Amino acid sequence: MKAYKNMSKEELQQLQKELSEAYENAKGKGLKLDMSRGKPSAEQLDLSKEMLDVVSSESNCKTEDGVECRNYGQMEGIYEARKLMADMMDTKPENVIVCGNASLNVMFDTISRSMTHGVCGSTPWCKLDKVKFLCPVPGYDRHFAITEYFGIEMINIPMSEDGPDMDLVEKYVSEDAAVKGIWCVPKYSNPQGVCYSDETVKRMAALKPAAEDFRIYWDNAYAVHHLYEEPERQVQLLDIISQCEKAGNPDMVLEFASTSKVSFPGGGISAVAASAKNLEYIKKSMTIQTIGYDKINQLRHVRFFKDINGIKAHMMKHAASIRPKFEAVLATLEKELGGLEIATWIKPKGGYFISFDAMEGCAKEIVAKCKEAGVVMTGAGSSYPYKKDPKDSNIRIAPTFPTPDELAAATEIFVLCVKLVSVEKLLEAK
Amino acid sequence: MKAYKNMSKEELQQLQKELSEAYENAKGKGLKLDMSRGKPSAEQLDLSKEMLDVVSSESNCKTEDGVECRNYGQMEGIYEARKLMADMMDTKPENVIVCGNASLNVMFDTISRSMTHGVCGSTPWCKLDKVKFLCPVPGYDRHFAITEYFGIEMINIPMSEDGPDMDLVEKYVSEDAAVKGIWCVPKYSNPQGVCYSDETVKRMAALKPAAEDFRIYWDNAYAVHHLYEEPERQVQLLDIISQCEKAGNPDMVLEFASTSKVSFPGGGISAVAASAKNLEYIKKSMTIQTIGYDKINQLRHVRFFKDINGIKAHMMKHAASIRPKFEAVLATLEKELGGLEIATWIKPKGGYFISFDAMEGCAKEIVAKCKEAGVVMTGAGSSYPYKKDPKDSNIRIAPTFPTPDELAAATEIFVLCVKLVSVEKLLEAK
Repeated sequence: MKAYKNMSKEELQQLQKELSEAYENAKGKGLKLDMSRGKPSAEQLDLSKEMLDVVSSESNCKTEDGVECRNYGQMEGIYEARKLMADMMDTKPENVIVCGNASLNVMFDTISRSMTHGVCGSTPWCKLDKVKFLCPVPGYDRHFAITEYFGIEMINIPMSEDGPDMDLVEKYVSEDAAVKGIWCVPKYSNPQGVCYSDETVKRMAALKPAAEDFRIYWDNAYAVHHLYEEPERQVQLLDIISQCEKAGNPDMVLEFASTSKVSFPGGGISAVAASAKNLEYIKKSMTIQTIGYDKINQLRHVRFFKDINGIKAHMMKHAASIRPKFEAVLATLEKELGGLEIATWIKPKGGYFISFDAMEGCAKEIVAKCKEAGVVMTGAGSSYPYKKDPKDSNIRIAPTFPTPDELAAATEIFVLCVKLVSVEKLLEAK
Repeated sequence: MKAYKNMSKEELQQLQKELSEAYENAKGKGLKLDMSRGKPSAEQLDLSKEMLDVVSSESNCKTEDGVECRNYGQMEGIYEARKLMADMMDTKPENVIVCGNASLNVMFDTISRSMTHGVCGSTPWCKLDKVKFLCPVPGYDRHFAITEYFGIEMINIPMSEDGPDMDLVEKYVSEDAAVKGIWCVPKYSNPQGVCYSDETVKRMAALKPAAEDFRIYWDNAYAVHHLYEEPERQVQLLDIISQCEKAGNPDMVLEFASTSKVSFPGGGISAVAASAKNLEYIKKSMTIQTIGYDKINQLRHVRFFKDINGIKAHMMKHAASIRPKFEAVLATLEKELGGLEIATWIKPKGGYFISFDAMEGCAKEIVAKCKEAGVVMTGAGSSYPYKKDPKDSNIRIAPTFPTPDELAAATEIFVLCVKLVSVEKLLEAK
């Protein structure tokens, strides 16, 4: 393969002509494909279908300690579910409150509560002139949407393969009392699949914040979402809660997780984990907000998965279903774009995404061209605060939802658009 | 029966002696009974148990229009569920968003959103010096807890048998721009079982608020919770949404409902109903807060109840289960307290409570004495903002949860405590 940047103007023009023809041809097919969201496929949904049977009219709906799951009560969740979610996060059941169907909702509520009531007694953020959050980029668009919604200023922090740039994080956190939080997806990050190294986690836990109400918002969304079965291909993440305890910062972290991509998206359970002091504070507001979350669904999860080993075994079924999709996309990227020097991408070991970096200034155009040809990608820039990718380079590929055939077709279109837009970009400069 | 107030000091002293002995005797029994919360009984839970079977591993989990309920999407709820909840509230599906397991949570979120973002573009309430809510009293403790939590000043509005004192409501709402809302439980109100008359609903809908962001918070919690089957013993409530439209105030009301006491408390579905403009505004924030609510549970409700007639028939089973409990309590009150002129109470046609008014200054002491004898009542004052019943008179009786035997025992203790405390009160004045 000849790198595009080494091609002459004439070679590029010839290539543009060929690619344009191929693109027009592809458009003519009237495709309707979607690689935009981290959504499990129909096949994956069926993996959990027996969960719908484990609590029935024949069931005793009581927990081991006698709580009736069909009635009010037990705001912090049933014990078995707290244990299950705790094991998923490598923490203790007493650190966990099991909540409703979405950890996103729990995170939103956490920020909302901080706006109106502060954090464990601090000044409500809505009374402050300025509140800032650190946002490792690229990151999860819905995190950034929450902080943007509440008017919180977001500061980009570059990611490396070990996690966020900790020098920068330490500087901001220790020097600026307006910095109240950092969004983290520490394992198989969205979108890069990066796992925070032990050193990153330890430095994170040892932060010395200028603000007493600074918290790490640790969205452990992909805690058990390995793509490979071999232990050496599975990444281990240090438990942030115990690291914070060790570092003398027991209250500095709030951890979130859910079963959205374990059981059913929208039909799962979620949890928040934190120190006793943080949980007490959360419960003060939660007890006003709700009488309790859906314990029947908690019971379903507990009876279906039994324990963390049940979840781990289940996740290997998911892996078997989606791994070929990741590999197919990666193979096509390598085959079609390898050596052209117009893009880089990360080969993840888990999570839901492939993070793709096009040449600077090309991502929006690539996504637009894909859309025109019937392939919906996540909006370019979505993985950055304010949807502004300073380099207009990052594109998040979500390979799980389409069928293998759809995925192959969509990836073909995608690489075609990458090539075409790159050629046009290079021609502009000639 | 001789009214206590007509008794001589000696008669009262003799009575006190007898009642005290009976009370000490009761205490010795070591009872543990609970009439504190509006909680369905085990028998009632079983009425819905087949709901746990209607979505199983064998089921197609798609809606009529093809939405997969086991995956993300459809934030406003599946159409069939919107229709079901709309019918429960006598409104149209397009006015409805179906939410999670608790309408309390939806109400909390609504107030929280108003604090941080205002109402349809108004100034966020957290930026205002003063926000006030009108609170018909006695009312629902958890409503008052929400407004108290957000630092909203609460103003008591007396209830009559037709609903809140509308002269007072009209005066406050039209004259004070700090008044941003009124909490209403318009049908079988908590705790009195009062139903707003047509005139009350029409005057409510015709309010001319000084504040553009004033809203009626219409918690139609007991829309279908009749105690009697005969149509003439069931109360009809005018639909507030269409009344507001007619009165030229289409955006002035937000209505809430849930199936918590229809299917499973904590395992039901909830809904908010409002004008298109209000729903648009709610969705702007909801789309940041969640990807969607639990559609599998929505599907369960739709498949189990089928339609509003299914709900109505189901509620008659609930009525058959709880009506004898209400009647037993009422009979004991009548038998033991009738003619003594130390208390009044309301005989409800629906809902979950019997509202009881003791002599002034006696409620707290009665509830404390009950507790000492092993009978937990809702805290005295709970049905008033800041838990302050100005007359210390109102007690909310929740008869549904105990078994008939437990209920009989608890009610005996209760009337005993009422008598004893009343006698002591009268003796104080002698």
